[in-house]
Amino acid sequence: MARIVMKFGGTSVADIDRIRNVARHVKRETDAGHEVAVVVSAMAGKTSELVDWTRQASLIHDAREYDAVVASGEQVTSGLLSIVLQSMGVNARSWQGWQIPIRTDNTHGAARILDIDGSELVRRFGEGQVAVIAGFQGLGPDNRIATLGRGGSDTSAVAMAAALKADRCDIYTDVDGVYTTDPRIEPKARRLKKIAFEEMLEMASLGAKVLQVRSVELAMVHKVRTFVRSSFIEPDAPGMGDFDNPPGTLICDEDEIVEQEVVTGIAYARDEAQISLRRLSDRPGVSAAIFGPLAEAHVNVDMIVQNISEDGTKTDMTFTVPSSDMEKSLAVLEKAKDAIGFDVVQSEPGLVKVSVIGIGMRSHAGVAATAFRALAGKGINIKAITTSEIKISILIDSAYAELAVRTLHSVYGLDKT
Amino acid sequence: MARIVMKFGGTSVADIDRIRNVARHVKRETDAGHEVAVVVSAMAGKTSELVDWTRQASLIHDAREYDAVVASGEQVTSGLLSIVLQSMGVNARSWQGWQIPIRTDNTHGAARILDIDGSELVRRFGEGQVAVIAGFQGLGPDNRIATLGRGGSDTSAVAMAAALKADRCDIYTDVDGVYTTDPRIEPKARRLKKIAFEEMLEMASLGAKVLQVRSVELAMVHKVRTFVRSSFIEPDAPGMGDFDNPPGTLICDEDEIVEQEVVTGIAYARDEAQISLRRLSDRPGVSAAIFGPLAEAHVNVDMIVQNISEDGTKTDMTFTVPSSDMEKSLAVLEKAKDAIGFDVVQSEPGLVKVSVIGIGMRSHAGVAATAFRALAGKGINIKAITTSEIKISILIDSAYAELAVRTLHSVYGLDKT
Repeated sequence: MARIVMKFGGTSVADIDRIRNVARHVKRETDAGHEVAVVVSAMAGKTSELVDWTRQASLIHDAREYDAVVASGEQVTSGLLSIVLQSMGVNARSWQGWQIPIRTDNTHGAARILDIDGSELVRRFGEGQVAVIAGFQGLGPDNRIATLGRGGSDTSAVAMAAALKADRCDIYTDVDGVYTTDPRIEPKARRLKKIAFEEMLEMASLGAKVLQVRSVELAMVHKVRTFVRSSFIEPDAPGMGDFDNPPGTLICDEDEIVEQEVVTGIAYARDEAQISLRRLSDRPGVSAAIFGPLAEAHVNVDMIVQNISEDGTKTDMTFTVPSSDMEKSLAVLEKAKDAIGFDVVQSEPGLVKVSVIGIGMRSHAGVAATAFRALAGKGINIKAITTSEIKISILIDSAYAELAVRTLHSVYGLDKT
Repeated sequence: MARIVMKFGGTSVADIDRIRNVARHVKRETDAGHEVAVVVSAMAGKTSELVDWTRQASLIHDAREYDAVVASGEQVTSGLLSIVLQSMGVNARSWQGWQIPIRTDNTHGAARILDIDGSELVRRFGEGQVAVIAGFQGLGPDNRIATLGRGGSDTSAVAMAAALKADRCDIYTDVDGVYTTDPRIEPKARRLKKIAFEEMLEMASLGAKVLQVRSVELAMVHKVRTFVRSSFIEPDAPGMGDFDNPPGTLICDEDEIVEQEVVTGIAYARDEAQISLRRLSDRPGVSAAIFGPLAEAHVNVDMIVQNISEDGTKTDMTFTVPSSDMEKSLAVLEKAKDAIGFDVVQSEPGLVKVSVIGIGMRSHAGVAATAFRALAGKGINIKAITTSEIKISILIDSAYAELAVRTLHSVYGLDKT
């Protein structure tokens, strides 16, 4: 017997038939004797409808009222799923964030979970009751509903799993796991059986839209074994009830991954723009002079590369921003030109960042060189490179995006065997 | 300066434009310096949608889960109205039943309000804040949301007014007051300036669908001066801000009505069925033998008339039920025939009950005789009569319904002058 948190997103609970399907997944686990807490999102489209109403009401609005309106979506799903579970003979009840309570900070609209009292839920597990929890929300210090912001239900689920000391947090979604790369680009992409938290964090932030970054961070901190699996597979399909080896991808501590590959996956992000400042005076504070004003303008700077210039007295600074922020960034830089003191600014939108990710590269030399050689062999020009312990990111022309992904996927041996 | 509770129903908050209109009504009162609590229903159609989902989920369902789902409608409106009020410069915040709290009993789906702690709201009135309260709901002893059942938002509003010791409870609806009779039947119907609680109770239960019976009962017990008025009149139309004499109908204690008319209004209810049991043995317990089984079958019996039969040893019993319950009632009676001991049962569906209502008839003789004479003069046959201190109800053929209403409206001098 294990304790499991199961999380279902909006497309998995889009209508009553889909909710019935979710209930069958839950019943499979309770029939197997497991203790289950379910975390649900709003029915697909409902959150957008509610958000849209708050905008119609006023473009600038009180985040606390926004929270009261928008949190109602998950409330509805929690009640409906409880009703369906009961009709299938499963002892279930709904829980709103304020009832548990899930305590958050006061940042309405993007609150952080501070504390969860899971004691009553655990007591009821002992009575065979399933907890159906409205995701995406908690209770602020002002005794008002606070929502967690984007992807909040994933975060709710992981936080509940940590609070309940669950053996696993199963995230049911519309994909059946985490792949070595995007299967739409490389049909030979393989579903990973396991991936380390750190790797998943890089995959998530680089455009593999399976899990929100925040929930992976939380899972890593609390060592919550998080399992990504599909709600669209029939609940009683072969293997679905296999606790030790169900179909999907386990995100876990690297210690749990016995045979670590050097490279785990290839991620990519489109619509990057490159900005280069040439012949900056090489003095302390020049980085702050550049990136301070950009941060104030809410530009999200990603890769940053600094080179010494030819003569050794000047420096070049290259960085990337979302293409949509390029014009704004250039205007900010122009305004701060005197304070920064640069000679020439160059920019190029519409680039692609391809990243090679793997914890194994820590202990393997030459991983980067392999990438550069492989891309050179296909005639792909590299515009910028940044590296971390477990990642190599390469900026290239968007025309070469698919070719680069496939080339790297193959050269690191990730293709299906 | 006064303290006012303002209640707006579903059609008054059907979309963001209508909510904006409601906010203008609220702002009119706060601009005049009044302390205001607003009670809102769900946007028109939303409650039906939510109820429909719970039925799709399971025809038989946990009322506590039903409550969690259905109460979300009012939650949404309370947040949206608060946002709109804030955008107009009115200091406002939303309150859910569990936040105030409005404590109810444990009868989920049809809960009764037990206690309301209005202290925090009153404190905030002092700071100029408007309370926007989700109607139709409270917090049960199980710490779960409990809804009040049909017409619950009217009840919420009256209960809030009692708890806050408000000077008035304004019920904004899609009609502009209480009329002497249905204006669709008698165009000469007049809007009443005032009506006593007891009279309104009779009007409400007899088919004048302005206010739910429960809310009128509550208003009578707590002597909450309740004002029925239209949300569809422009908020700044002449007289709308006149605190002492706005357009609408005040439901109040009879002491407040100085010149009490003998008859206040004519109500009617369609689709009544008459059932007569002939030649019952006239013995103790015969009424219980009849009405006990009907109550167990959830048949709502209305008028009851008992006559002694010709020879003085037997009795006849006549009563009315909704036409839709007639067949069921006859089956129940047939089953209980031996226990009851009747000779013949007669029945007739599709009748109409017309009622003459007025507190003044307590102190006036001959009010009933006037009705009988007037109806006889039009050739209308009376099938049954019941009377109370302030009401005469007459059962007639449905074909004569409109004629009877107009005749009685005229004979008691209720026509517009």
